[in-house]
Amino acid sequence: MRIIVLGGDGYLGWPTAMYLSNMGHDVCVMDNYIKRQLVSKNNIKDLFLNPLLDVRSEYFYKKSQKKIEVIIGDCSNYNELKLVIKDFLPDVVIHYAEQSSAAFSMKGFEEAELTLNNNLMTTFNLIWAIKDYVPNCHIIKLGTMGEYGTPNIDIEEGWIDINHKGRTDKFLYPRQGGSLYHTSKVLDTDLLWFYTKNYGLRVTDLMQGPVYGFLTDDMQNDTKLLTNFFYDDIFGTVLNRFIVQAVSGVPLTVYGKGGQIRGYLNIKDVMQCIGLAVNNPAPKGELRIINQFTELFSVLDLANKVALVGNSMGLKVSIDNLKNPRKEQENHYYNAKNTTLTQLGLNPNLLTDEVLQEMLSFVLNYKNVIDKEKIMPSVLW
Amino acid sequence: MRIIVLGGDGYLGWPTAMYLSNMGHDVCVMDNYIKRQLVSKNNIKDLFLNPLLDVRSEYFYKKSQKKIEVIIGDCSNYNELKLVIKDFLPDVVIHYAEQSSAAFSMKGFEEAELTLNNNLMTTFNLIWAIKDYVPNCHIIKLGTMGEYGTPNIDIEEGWIDINHKGRTDKFLYPRQGGSLYHTSKVLDTDLLWFYTKNYGLRVTDLMQGPVYGFLTDDMQNDTKLLTNFFYDDIFGTVLNRFIVQAVSGVPLTVYGKGGQIRGYLNIKDVMQCIGLAVNNPAPKGELRIINQFTELFSVLDLANKVALVGNSMGLKVSIDNLKNPRKEQENHYYNAKNTTLTQLGLNPNLLTDEVLQEMLSFVLNYKNVIDKEKIMPSVLW
Repeated sequence: MRIIVLGGDGYLGWPTAMYLSNMGHDVCVMDNYIKRQLVSKNNIKDLFLNPLLDVRSEYFYKKSQKKIEVIIGDCSNYNELKLVIKDFLPDVVIHYAEQSSAAFSMKGFEEAELTLNNNLMTTFNLIWAIKDYVPNCHIIKLGTMGEYGTPNIDIEEGWIDINHKGRTDKFLYPRQGGSLYHTSKVLDTDLLWFYTKNYGLRVTDLMQGPVYGFLTDDMQNDTKLLTNFFYDDIFGTVLNRFIVQAVSGVPLTVYGKGGQIRGYLNIKDVMQCIGLAVNNPAPKGELRIINQFTELFSVLDLANKVALVGNSMGLKVSIDNLKNPRKEQENHYYNAKNTTLTQLGLNPNLLTDEVLQEMLSFVLNYKNVIDKEKIMPSVLW
Repeated sequence: MRIIVLGGDGYLGWPTAMYLSNMGHDVCVMDNYIKRQLVSKNNIKDLFLNPLLDVRSEYFYKKSQKKIEVIIGDCSNYNELKLVIKDFLPDVVIHYAEQSSAAFSMKGFEEAELTLNNNLMTTFNLIWAIKDYVPNCHIIKLGTMGEYGTPNIDIEEGWIDINHKGRTDKFLYPRQGGSLYHTSKVLDTDLLWFYTKNYGLRVTDLMQGPVYGFLTDDMQNDTKLLTNFFYDDIFGTVLNRFIVQAVSGVPLTVYGKGGQIRGYLNIKDVMQCIGLAVNNPAPKGELRIINQFTELFSVLDLANKVALVGNSMGLKVSIDNLKNPRKEQENHYYNAKNTTLTQLGLNPNLLTDEVLQEMLSFVLNYKNVIDKEKIMPSVLW
């Protein structure tokens, strides 16, 4: 199949491009390097200092003899995106081209505006380019489990039957985000649903939990093929940040009591999930929503796991319960369904001590370049 | 109170400004005349050819000795809006500054992009200007009953308790629009709710049904104080369009079978509702949602009423069931709650034969300037 990965320079974008290319697909990545610009503007460093996409693609070709086409362009500009879609005529588009940091989206007006504008307009432009040029193309959109928030009822996969005063109807599961970023994803889903039902598009929305890890099989332990890896309070995700903290001797920063429960998954499983979605397209006119995570943990669970394994490796790992910089519930009901991916054949990589050990060992190689100043929360909301 | 009316040049904006001014408030209107530009670009004419805002305001001053401040500016530009908010320091902002035509939003890419961008960014900018400069200010936002669509369960006022698998939680009522315009309003509500709960704003969202009529008490039968009145397929609303069709001898254009049921209200009642919302502000941190309509009618009900009264006046009124240009249900359950406004003291002006007669008689004065070419549906979706 012909597959475009929008946001192909990102944490998940680049590994996805390699994964799909190794599956035998014709892959094109598009990115405007906005994340690199934001990272540099905020004086943050990626742990691995990844080369630009054309260098990555060239290197991948040398190793695999597989060509990943690279386009540096802005999906939030309709004309740029339209030309790529018209030219490449994809069977599938994977849409990662969104500003994905909750903390960044809560920093101030400019950051909020960028998040809302970028995320809505990349999605809107993609919808129109697909509808007008390749209406059969399967859009695979990365959503987030954070769209659901932490409701007091079970979280279903995207849709819910509501019984109310003796009558019943089926609705998109009512969602409310805990940050502007999460809210922008709620809006994305609504926008996709309207156009999907109106024009018969085919869309899979993967409601993904926080991802951990950085090594996928396609990297073949080659540091030049690594993905980007952030451990700061803005672009770092929680478990990756804990790993870096454990390695660098900084107490693990648990926000509040750490009772926040979320569904997590290994980056290797993200690859599997994308592959399964590609192989099982949504029917026309359907917004298929899949909850994408493998295990539930509280933040404190994760910290305890990292501390246990880290200490067994001779690191001195302690835990620091910080005043929560976010407005979120620290003690809540959480029961989310995730059966679709199992039905499609997902074979999960669970968070074992070995997995944690592998992550800690790998990051130990980079101990000297870790910038400890960037670990504490700087954005309050 | 100090009140800003955003979109103060519009069908509801200008009458609202006069109404609040006559109530004794200090009123400022802001508008960028975008509707006038779109109307002129689409070669459409308002029936009454309203003067610009400064002329209207001057004329209103001569009649009432009350000053309505006029600012020509664009709310979708943050700096323009911020300066107005910082300078005027409103106690209340009435937010009408949205592209409000469903048909326009479905015309093509440019129209859809303008609708989404304008409606989201005016709301986003307003939220930020209020949060940063007048956090106690009461935002009164015009929503639409169209956000709910036509669900098979009762429509509550904005919020719903969902019982699911033995557990319960309260959610924003799940909404899905039937056009991009309606979808943009769904997104607005989600955006407002996120920022309201996060920063303790006070917001009233008035979910308004289609409005009919054009004469409010503040116009004092003075044609120079009239609001704008559209009867074309893009900016005209259904009952107003039927009135013009009846007067000009064009069969009433019922879309499909005409079984579409909606909650309607007289423009005089919109004034009352706004006044009631102004006098009863939402508490801080609350998104108060009020369903704003007085009576339920199907489209065919309305056509029959207009035909009956029109024919009794000697007009020759017939009904034409056109192929529905829209994707919408023509036979559906519809039971929507609207008790809050009654509790606040709304005294409804119902759609009596006298009201229809008054509208028909008034429009008969303009019979010669009606452009019949603009009545048939031109946008399909």
